Amino acid sequence: MTKSALQIARAAYQPKLPKALQGHVKAVDGAATQSVADQEEIKKLFPNTYGMPVVKFEAADKAEQLPAMNVGVILSGGQAPGGHNVISGLFDGIKKLNKDSRLYGFILGPGGLVDHNYKELTADIIDEYRNTGGFDIIGSGRTKLEKVEQFEKGYEILKELGIKALVIIGGDDSNTNACVLAEYYAAQKYGIQVIGCPKTIDGDLKNDMIETSFGFDTACKTYSEVIGNIERDCNSARKYWHFIKLMGRSASHIALECALQTQPNICLVSEEIEAKNMSLDDIVTYIAQTVADRAAAGNNFGTVLIPEGLIEFIPAMKRLIAELNDFLAAHGEEYAAIERSAQRDYIIGKLSAENAAIYASLPEGVARQLTLDRDPHGNVQVSLIETEKLLSEMVGVKLAQWKKEGKYTGKFAAQHHFFGYEGRCAAPSNFDADYCYSLGYAAAALIANGKTGYMASVRNTIAPAEEWIAGGVPITMMMNMERRNGELKPVIQKALVKLDGAPFKYFEAHRAEWAKETAYVYPGPIQYFGPTEVCDQSTRTLQLEQAQ
Amino acid sequence: MTKSALQIARAAYQPKLPKALQGHVKAVDGAATQSVADQEEIKKLFPNTYGMPVVKFEAADKAEQLPAMNVGVILSGGQAPGGHNVISGLFDGIKKLNKDSRLYGFILGPGGLVDHNYKELTADIIDEYRNTGGFDIIGSGRTKLEKVEQFEKGYEILKELGIKALVIIGGDDSNTNACVLAEYYAAQKYGIQVIGCPKTIDGDLKNDMIETSFGFDTACKTYSEVIGNIERDCNSARKYWHFIKLMGRSASHIALECALQTQPNICLVSEEIEAKNMSLDDIVTYIAQTVADRAAAGNNFGTVLIPEGLIEFIPAMKRLIAELNDFLAAHGEEYAAIERSAQRDYIIGKLSAENAAIYASLPEGVARQLTLDRDPHGNVQVSLIETEKLLSEMVGVKLAQWKKEGKYTGKFAAQHHFFGYEGRCAAPSNFDADYCYSLGYAAAALIANGKTGYMASVRNTIAPAEEWIAGGVPITMMMNMERRNGELKPVIQKALVKLDGAPFKYFEAHRAEWAKETAYVYPGPIQYFGPTEVCDQSTRTLQLEQAQ
Repeated sequence: MTKSALQIARAAYQPKLPKALQGHVKAVDGAATQSVADQEEIKKLFPNTYGMPVVKFEAADKAEQLPAMNVGVILSGGQAPGGHNVISGLFDGIKKLNKDSRLYGFILGPGGLVDHNYKELTADIIDEYRNTGGFDIIGSGRTKLEKVEQFEKGYEILKELGIKALVIIGGDDSNTNACVLAEYYAAQKYGIQVIGCPKTIDGDLKNDMIETSFGFDTACKTYSEVIGNIERDCNSARKYWHFIKLMGRSASHIALECALQTQPNICLVSEEIEAKNMSLDDIVTYIAQTVADRAAAGNNFGTVLIPEGLIEFIPAMKRLIAELNDFLAAHGEEYAAIERSAQRDYIIGKLSAENAAIYASLPEGVARQLTLDRDPHGNVQVSLIETEKLLSEMVGVKLAQWKKEGKYTGKFAAQHHFFGYEGRCAAPSNFDADYCYSLGYAAAALIANGKTGYMASVRNTIAPAEEWIAGGVPITMMMNMERRNGELKPVIQKALVKLDGAPFKYFEAHRAEWAKETAYVYPGPIQYFGPTEVCDQSTRTLQLEQAQ
Repeated sequence: MTKSALQIARAAYQPKLPKALQGHVKAVDGAATQSVADQEEIKKLFPNTYGMPVVKFEAADKAEQLPAMNVGVILSGGQAPGGHNVISGLFDGIKKLNKDSRLYGFILGPGGLVDHNYKELTADIIDEYRNTGGFDIIGSGRTKLEKVEQFEKGYEILKELGIKALVIIGGDDSNTNACVLAEYYAAQKYGIQVIGCPKTIDGDLKNDMIETSFGFDTACKTYSEVIGNIERDCNSARKYWHFIKLMGRSASHIALECALQTQPNICLVSEEIEAKNMSLDDIVTYIAQTVADRAAAGNNFGTVLIPEGLIEFIPAMKRLIAELNDFLAAHGEEYAAIERSAQRDYIIGKLSAENAAIYASLPEGVARQLTLDRDPHGNVQVSLIETEKLLSEMVGVKLAQWKKEGKYTGKFAAQHHFFGYEGRCAAPSNFDADYCYSLGYAAAALIANGKTGYMASVRNTIAPAEEWIAGGVPITMMMNMERRNGELKPVIQKALVKLDGAPFKYFEAHRAEWAKETAYVYPGPIQYFGPTEVCDQSTRTLQLEQAQ
């Protein structure tokens, strides 16, 4: 395997651990907990794993003698920087407790558990992956562990391998499912613990007990690096507006964090657009006005950040898409039979007046996309819509109109970018390398202490790693009941951007100035070896939230 | 101005200089030179600047006493990392010779000289921009300095400011024009020297005397960082083929260098495609075959690098585009009047048989683009063609055909990326920071020694900076006569990828293995503070070429 110089140098990095995890560890139980909402329903659904105490690890004087234990680990869902360090922390953690402990990785996600597809992760394998990005050590997958048959199939292989505990590294859904699995195995008295770890670059798995999900830090820094480079280009060439879409369908944390790091002229925040009931035209007008104002000051250039999920947060677009879904479900064949050039008018004729007007206002390509690309359930594939091009095209049309009316005299030319895959598998920053390793180590300690239905937690993360607080949080504590595919289900609350939270408030207080001035900040590439203020700072989001 | 932690830390970096430039400097003239070709014509066109010796700087025992001198500087064309360091090296160089020397920057490129738009670059301004990316200190522009009126307008302001020498930082065209200007001012006996500096991320300004253009190193490392991240994602999710287009229209150096750094499954090299007279279908078949072979081994994923200029290197596409240009120049209105849905068939009916067949094979969107988007001269805007999508769409069609024929049984899903603006303004790597600073310093020394029509040169660049050889090369030495817009002109030869050169040979020897295996290398982000093997290595291209 050919390795880059950085891969080789970085392999030697020893991630930092909280003080409490450095030597012998004891678990201290706090008070009993409740779910954040719907306590009665959740309690009924999780009789064996509800109400458990928050756990905090403290340094102990002497080591507990533990028998060797076999542990399984699964990577679930989209990649996030640091996954390999969770696994190496878990490995080192269980080996420290007993050198004969073994770690098994299930291949390509939860499907590997169900299909009995696994491999033992030995020291030589682990050493190849320390401090590296990606999930390629065992791969990941999107199979959902939801059904009793899956739980039973999993139990077969866990029993066969003598596995005492399973660690599931995933986002909110995967951790919800981890808890359901923990409850099931507890109810069946199978003697198998299940522990979750908070992963997602989207940053939407966090709450009072989980300060941040891993990978968010590295992914945002990687995106901010290239956004900063584009801003510098933008400010040098002075002739383009760059429309940059950023991954994150359910929440705008990534766009907001990148805005805090790079100070672009515009950043859209889906949660605000929804709360203010803004229309697509409102958004286009806002961007066009900013373009016009900057043009009036001689600046025919700028940078716009757009969260991937935007379209689904625009109430009017949501209604349009819902009507299109219903209409095409009933009349899809009729529509397909119509000549291509007549399809647009056909749709406009069939929609309600409000939706017809919106549909008619969309650029042709996007309008077509809304009726053609449908997922297996017959729904519009919103993720395929190139929102960055949709917006720049509509802004261009509006500016041309304003030019005719004499309200605008600048030049408008756009470039488009979409960043997602560029950062999900970046090598973890020092923060993510340390945080993930500590999460894996904490998971090992939770297992050693017989816990199940817990998520590993590391808090006080804006302090130096030494002072971090490691422990575990009952997953039921983060749950509420939500409607999913028509059914009420217990799920971990997804954390959207809070409009009264410190990160958004900071952004809101500065955005008018950033729109007008060229106040770009250029974060540059993630550094691993330099001064601590360059290498070890966590996200602006985390700093602002924790300072609150 | 808000600055990132890295911006602040990086400002303190002192770029390294070749030993000969560190103290007092003397210029040693070599033998007289000739142009690389067309000696008689070039000599006739450049009577005052032809045949001058190559200059090499050596350490001198004592300082020459020099009067203060005013110098002008211009950034020309596309941004490249390190431009600010050329300027700071030039500033420090002329200040060292005489502390009363002054530096003037012309604003937004060569146009600033003609329009008398300039500002003095004082120490406090220079200090804000040391080791930063971008050209924003004075901006850049694409005005071509070609006409006597421009030269005379420029002379007015140069005379007014008492400027003794003008430094033009640009690519092959800008340096050609710098030489024409040097010749003109020499012929007119205006007493103004003109010095060029080799800039371009494309890497196509190099020859026996110029080892590399600045910015190529940083840009390629930035692209390779994100390509590596995508490869790691690709190898973790194991479900996508990533088609990645890379900037560089005239040559494939960037794609090739990124391939050497990241070892993707496929990298197209335009120069090879032209040399082998490959058709679009040949390329599509080559990619599809690689996809099919990997699928047969269970790997439905991969990474493809595509140089931006590909289409123009495919001989058959060139012929198609030429015929389309001619046909639409004559029948553009007739074409535009035809109903949209009938346009494709109309064009197919009008083209020669060979071109009609190629046109008919193109996906609808691309075919339309070839007839609709035309530049002010009526030519197809090849740069707007999304080659990465064109190829993946055609590969998908071919694979679907092979599936029907039972020759292929895999899954094929594609993601698309285009990287250019992401790297042109990155903060310079240590290599580019040192190289650019040395070029600027060498330019100052050339000026002090009364040279004109020279390009600053720094050689032996794979050795530590101390051992670099600084000097100057007569620009006429790099020239030959080429047809441009129908006229024979003296120009600097553009350096395309040499198919018998060491970088391509290395790639050629390994690509079959990289196609089959998943041999990805993950270079990670540029590091400034770590071990020297991580921070100070130049490109693989340079290393392989110089080892030759």
